[in-house]
Amino acid sequence: MLEQRMRIAFVHVGAPAGGMNAATRAAVAYCFTRGHKPIAIHNGFPGLCRHHDDKPIGAVRDLHWLEVDSWVSKGGSEIGTNRGLPSEDMEKTAYCFDKYKFEALFVVGGFEAFTAVSELRKARDKYPAFRIPMTVLPATISNNVPGTEFSIGSDTCLNALIDYCDAIRQSASASRRRVFVVETQGGRSGYIATIAGLSVGAFAVYTPEEGIGIKMLSRDIDSLREGFARDQGQNRAGKLILRNEHASETYTTEVIANMIREEAKGRFESRFAIPGHVQQGGIPSPMDRVRAVRLAVKCMQFLEEFAGKSPEEIKNDPMSAAVIGIQGAKVIFSPMETLEREQTDWKQRRPKREFWLDLKSIVDILSGRPPVVAK
Amino acid sequence: MLEQRMRIAFVHVGAPAGGMNAATRAAVAYCFTRGHKPIAIHNGFPGLCRHHDDKPIGAVRDLHWLEVDSWVSKGGSEIGTNRGLPSEDMEKTAYCFDKYKFEALFVVGGFEAFTAVSELRKARDKYPAFRIPMTVLPATISNNVPGTEFSIGSDTCLNALIDYCDAIRQSASASRRRVFVVETQGGRSGYIATIAGLSVGAFAVYTPEEGIGIKMLSRDIDSLREGFARDQGQNRAGKLILRNEHASETYTTEVIANMIREEAKGRFESRFAIPGHVQQGGIPSPMDRVRAVRLAVKCMQFLEEFAGKSPEEIKNDPMSAAVIGIQGAKVIFSPMETLEREQTDWKQRRPKREFWLDLKSIVDILSGRPPVVAK
Amino acid sequence: MLEQRMRIAFVHVGAPAGGMNAATRAAVAYCFTRGHKPIAIHNGFPGLCRHHDDKPIGAVRDLHWLEVDSWVSKGGSEIGTNRGLPSEDMEKTAYCFDKYKFEALFVVGGFEAFTAVSELRKARDKYPAFRIPMTVLPATISNNVPGTEFSIGSDTCLNALIDYCDAIRQSASASRRRVFVVETQGGRSGYIATIAGLSVGAFAVYTPEEGIGIKMLSRDIDSLREGFARDQGQNRAGKLILRNEHASETYTTEVIANMIREEAKGRFESRFAIPGHVQQGGIPSPMDRVRAVRLAVKCMQFLEEFAGKSPEEIKNDPMSAAVIGIQGAKVIFSPMETLEREQTDWKQRRPKREFWLDLKSIVDILSGRPPVVAK
Amino acid sequence: MLEQRMRIAFVHVGAPAGGMNAATRAAVAYCFTRGHKPIAIHNGFPGLCRHHDDKPIGAVRDLHWLEVDSWVSKGGSEIGTNRGLPSEDMEKTAYCFDKYKFEALFVVGGFEAFTAVSELRKARDKYPAFRIPMTVLPATISNNVPGTEFSIGSDTCLNALIDYCDAIRQSASASRRRVFVVETQGGRSGYIATIAGLSVGAFAVYTPEEGIGIKMLSRDIDSLREGFARDQGQNRAGKLILRNEHASETYTTEVIANMIREEAKGRFESRFAIPGHVQQGGIPSPMDRVRAVRLAVKCMQFLEEFAGKSPEEIKNDPMSAAVIGIQGAKVIFSPMETLEREQTDWKQRRPKREFWLDLKSIVDILSGRPPVVAK
Repeated sequence: MLEQRMRIAFVHVGAPAGGMNAATRAAVAYCFTRGHKPIAIHNGFPGLCRHHDDKPIGAVRDLHWLEVDSWVSKGGSEIGTNRGLPSEDMEKTAYCFDKYKFEALFVVGGFEAFTAVSELRKARDKYPAFRIPMTVLPATISNNVPGTEFSIGSDTCLNALIDYCDAIRQSASASRRRVFVVETQGGRSGYIATIAGLSVGAFAVYTPEEGIGIKMLSRDIDSLREGFARDQGQNRAGKLILRNEHASETYTTEVIANMIREEAKGRFESRFAIPGHVQQGGIPSPMDRVRAVRLAVKCMQFLEEFAGKSPEEIKNDPMSAAVIGIQGAKVIFSPMETLEREQTDWKQRRPKREFWLDLKSIVDILSGRPPVVAK
Repeated sequence: MLEQRMRIAFVHVGAPAGGMNAATRAAVAYCFTRGHKPIAIHNGFPGLCRHHDDKPIGAVRDLHWLEVDSWVSKGGSEIGTNRGLPSEDMEKTAYCFDKYKFEALFVVGGFEAFTAVSELRKARDKYPAFRIPMTVLPATISNNVPGTEFSIGSDTCLNALIDYCDAIRQSASASRRRVFVVETQGGRSGYIATIAGLSVGAFAVYTPEEGIGIKMLSRDIDSLREGFARDQGQNRAGKLILRNEHASETYTTEVIANMIREEAKGRFESRFAIPGHVQQGGIPSPMDRVRAVRLAVKCMQFLEEFAGKSPEEIKNDPMSAAVIGIQGAKVIFSPMETLEREQTDWKQRRPKREFWLDLKSIVDILSGRPPVVAK
Repeated sequence: MLEQRMRIAFVHVGAPAGGMNAATRAAVAYCFTRGHKPIAIHNGFPGLCRHHDDKPIGAVRDLHWLEVDSWVSKGGSEIGTNRGLPSEDMEKTAYCFDKYKFEALFVVGGFEAFTAVSELRKARDKYPAFRIPMTVLPATISNNVPGTEFSIGSDTCLNALIDYCDAIRQSASASRRRVFVVETQGGRSGYIATIAGLSVGAFAVYTPEEGIGIKMLSRDIDSLREGFARDQGQNRAGKLILRNEHASETYTTEVIANMIREEAKGRFESRFAIPGHVQQGGIPSPMDRVRAVRLAVKCMQFLEEFAGKSPEEIKNDPMSAAVIGIQGAKVIFSPMETLEREQTDWKQRRPKREFWLDLKSIVDILSGRPPVVAK
Repeated sequence: MLEQRMRIAFVHVGAPAGGMNAATRAAVAYCFTRGHKPIAIHNGFPGLCRHHDDKPIGAVRDLHWLEVDSWVSKGGSEIGTNRGLPSEDMEKTAYCFDKYKFEALFVVGGFEAFTAVSELRKARDKYPAFRIPMTVLPATISNNVPGTEFSIGSDTCLNALIDYCDAIRQSASASRRRVFVVETQGGRSGYIATIAGLSVGAFAVYTPEEGIGIKMLSRDIDSLREGFARDQGQNRAGKLILRNEHASETYTTEVIANMIREEAKGRFESRFAIPGHVQQGGIPSPMDRVRAVRLAVKCMQFLEEFAGKSPEEIKNDPMSAAVIGIQGAKVIFSPMETLEREQTDWKQRRPKREFWLDLKSIVDILSGRPPVVAK
């Protein structure tokens, strides 16, 4: 057991993602082996501000092993997650941090979680309550958190999305010549769409990074028409196009399906499908669970290192507000301040540099689409 | 081996449904043990009329065991299914029946398959080619074929739909107080929606049989509001409403979700989700496979009984065009003619009497909704 | 609300089966709409006798909606199930029934549940505490409870088993000529093995009803050898044999796999696989959930009818200890006494007449095995 | 199109693994865009030597797109895989390489694939036919190929294994105090067992790297006993122990389960389960499919670079026989010669340095087991 036991607050921010519960369970287990007190903030920062002293049961509660033990394979978030940011009521947030004597903060979530910790860090000048160590464990199906190549939840999302696409494709195989346009989630990042596209052998993938234009669509419809013309009915495999929900404001999933049908002139069919929130739920995948457990334990060890330090020391240490990330083979903590300034595309809500972009070109190579004309 | 070997044509009509391939495989296996020749018509009646003599490979082809053996667990339809009816070109259909010397017809599909055999039966006066035994094995996720309580494919559809709803519900559990309106397929039959609703513990199910009205919605929103008011945040289970795609033209899935949000006045959230074609694909469920195999073998034995009979005898025998059905514990063949006349609601494309209607009331009992006001 | 509210005890007996929780949830929901008090006996009859007054928390506890609401899609048994029978301590059992003022008993489980209620019924002469209405909702993967054609849990088991077999078959397809012998559960009933065999296109199914003999095995190995000899390597589909765990004491799954390998003389391979308890767990299937909900509500309505009757009246009414069952299209309550005497094969722990036996022959027809030589 | 088109042979070696077909499909697609001729060797090296000139259809066949297009989501190996090594008949192997004019070799498989290319490389002095570029794409559930951190197939295996364990755990939750010992595959590498253990929150993981000893077992049983003693019945989560199939010759899965039962003295139960070949089959996971596609395309680009080089140049270039690998964020080709000499533990059939070993300690931290006593 430690000399310095800490009261560690757990909060989930943003949309649910597979592995949030597994991360929480592992961190709680670690806390108990070390003598720390893990405390859940239910339903995010709005939960904290609005319901912390609800009767009979408030939003700030100790975490118990008997409750947490069965969470390892559960999707969603058992303590509740919420998109609300601390800036909605910074005063009240600081008041609660003081009142419940939080000595460290463990935030699990996506781009909003990143933003939340960024806000808390910037508010340290004004509010001493935030001069505690904080870390973000990236968890979002969109895989768009600066500082890491992989967010937990994105692999689970891919499992659900690809199951969905496999089934759609199977249904398409019963009809000759059918094209399905499937709309994926993923915020302003085309990661999910691209990886799913590779996994299901999609004909094309439309991403926010590349956008959608009239020439691109025209070329793709020509290419589909030629493909079907060569096929004498032997090939049953339906064709799939994956379109990220934010790839274009004009060319929506439905509009694209309609354009294809129109141009097909009866030689092939076109449908669209929107899997929706099924991408956020479901049982977390092994990869997400393992990453969740591994990163959560490291986050606790990271927070522990600040035990015994003064608020001033913490405030002056850039590492005291950090994001844990997988970068290549390594697990790395990056200081929020640097990430905010250098690596974040705030407008598009994604990292400036996305490591997976070269995978996009493989989709095109494999589907035999002609290279994209420079815009 | 039989004295009387038959040339049996296989055709799939309508949308794909789980078990079509398993039924085909079992019937082919039976044919081989008995010396019959199983012949596939690829891509339905339009495939027959338009592509029967395509080069190098036409739409009428012998079925081989090596090809068929691996189909047992495959979704979709390996020989292709199509909604087109023989009446689109009755002349050409009869020509092809003659040309390929079909001596029996095995049709797998849903309401269109039922309609197709009805058309062929009625055309027997004019076209002698149709004076052969014909049987329909009901296969449709909508479970709306007269003459049977269970169509193959509906159990597979339910598996997919319920997986989807379970995942949606799991995602809902991460947020306080969320209602999801999920749109199901099922044609003009509320079967799928009702059974899925029971299976996932839905708050309400909206079916075409009952329709949707303003009072019903108002009452349900009140009931939701009261439920959430009582809940002090301990209950994480999201609430689901299942709405059949044809339950109402006015109150679409999206409109209902918006109405709920509007009336919730911020006290709870509302979203909608449309699983779509995923309900038709995927790996067939055990129940569908078993029923497919069992019914397919019985269909072959049924067709066999007509071997050696004259076209005239067949034409005059009402049982020579029949639907196989599960009715209670029994497997029964019903003559098309009687079903057409007495048991079919042609306008609503469903049986006049649906056996599952009493299950609907259990949904209401369990969700504690007040009884429906008489319309 | 009712005039006559009842204290209804819920207990789960035997191995877990998919739908136990869904049945419990539905019955609890019904109780609340009617004003009854649902009370859980945790961990079966041994839980009752040994732990009913444990501190701080005993085995007899009121059921609350917040706890139960999320159970609809959960496998296993949330209140715990146990194989122990009341006869292990009838005295103590009666004492507890009195102490907790049980006015009705709802038992969910398999052959042990059936046996337990049989014991309680017979003990009514001696113990007045048992003069309350009792009903069994059959729940067991083995589908071997007298009085019903379908036990909840068997469809879920089939889903798990068939997923397993599909994956095994897929792995077999990577190698030329492989036979897999898969051992299924199912007690002394071949139901699970037979239905799964039909669903996966098994080459053979070995059941306790038929047993296994040397001639049968010899014939089957010959038939396998001929099949592989005809195949010039084009057919990748592996062959599966399903063997119920109690089909023979001599010819175990491993022994059969070894015999096949020995006799194959290198021309094909043989392996065995034992899926085990995976057949009992997992998420309940739609069919099991719907049946669970439907039957549970009917069980509550059935128990309600005895409200207000005297212990003597109840004791003298044969229907006051009954099994709910699906028989063809109908849901029927059968009196225990009649079932015990007329329809139960106590030694083999299954109904005297099993409705599915004719399905067994279809397996043989489809795999082209020669007919079984009369023993 | 290229100046230098190549005849590229595809062969699968070893046990099946998820993604083998996806890799083959992607490589074939790439070949067609570049004008190469992809040629399948069916059923591995034994297929080549024994069946290359079978009539009517030999083991060496051109790959066609219509055949390959639907392989993306298929488990197993559509061209057949076999453990046999070229050294079984090096002479005949070389003869076939000559006869079919292979100009490059693409091997997909696990440790045997690695060994096969090692043998071919060493035989280049004697057989000029092997002086062609060769590359291994590691594909094995055991994840034990030197030169890479991830083999395709291991993620699929983990998905299957963890589904299995989740279901087992669910079944365990229905009984108080049950321990399940689950036997995993994985050859002499504890990777699968360890990652699965983390994902399911296993109490302990037994690996070949660590072995199993009497002290370890004694300590673990003590620890189980204490855990159950503290639990007053509130905790339903069953406990899992994962044991790699080669972790010990003495302490088999069954022996361990028996030892636990013996020592539990009735205070808790113990069972064992062996999922078996289900770990090799099933639908490949997204991660495996993406890696398969990505690595396969890179392998083709790698082989292309040798187009036009003389046999002598190839023989003298250490990179002409290489393994593709994922190392951190990078995809790297390593020369066989170096891997053979420096990084391979030939006796244990695994890399000398396994990157995941530190994950093992997290299992222990989380389950609260006391640290392992130094041996």
